[in-house]
Amino acid sequence: MSELDGQHCEVCRNSAPLANPEEIKLWLQEIPKWHLVDIEGTPQLERQFRFKNYAKAVMFANAVAALSEDQGHHPQIVLEWGLVIVRWWTHKINGLHRNDFICARSVDQLPLARLDQTS
Amino acid sequence: MSELDGQHCEVCRNSAPLANPEEIKLWLQEIPKWHLVDIEGTPQLERQFRFKNYAKAVMFANAVAALSEDQGHHPQIVLEWGLVIVRWWTHKINGLHRNDFICARSVDQLPLARLDQTS
Repeated sequence: MSELDGQHCEVCRNSAPLANPEEIKLWLQEIPKWHLVDIEGTPQLERQFRFKNYAKAVMFANAVAALSEDQGHHPQIVLEWGLVIVRWWTHKINGLHRNDFICARSVDQLPLARLDQTS
Repeated sequence: MSELDGQHCEVCRNSAPLANPEEIKLWLQEIPKWHLVDIEGTPQLERQFRFKNYAKAVMFANAVAALSEDQGHHPQIVLEWGLVIVRWWTHKINGLHRNDFICARSVDQLPLARLDQTS
């Protein structure tokens, strides 16, 4: 169990706090398959999922999309043949919020995530 | 009508010819909403589609995925809230093949593409 489990995104305002370095370090331990990336100056949480065919990748992308609609928080989903990359960040604060870690953890717990074949 | 209409991708081998500059110039005229981008040294065809909500963007991404499975040629699809970016290139030849232009034209003709709200 993680303190991120079963949480729902809170409504995020422009004044919402960025995750601080200690929180980032702590919460990354709860989602060890995700890593921090910098995309044009914005820190994001990224995980790559590999699937044995296109249909499974499409199904997984849809599962992530459904989860994000339920959370009211939407990641970038990149779909290629056999590959889905998910990137979470919070546009309003141009960085990482606790919501992003909650959502990353939720993606890890999707049943289809078990089909990931990344080493 | 375009010479790209109604065409199906041909099986692409490692020895398949790259589109030459004259062909690229000619075929780009058939798909004026697409532009040429360079992603880490690989030329790709890119078009951005904007939608008024997430559900429509997800539906469109799925329509592109279904088309690509039918063609046996798979683009990169980037999905965000209200936004879908489609990028076509041919991995085997690390560049653009006639197939990519055929598929771009096919995406333009998807009924859901009419919902694009880009300027």
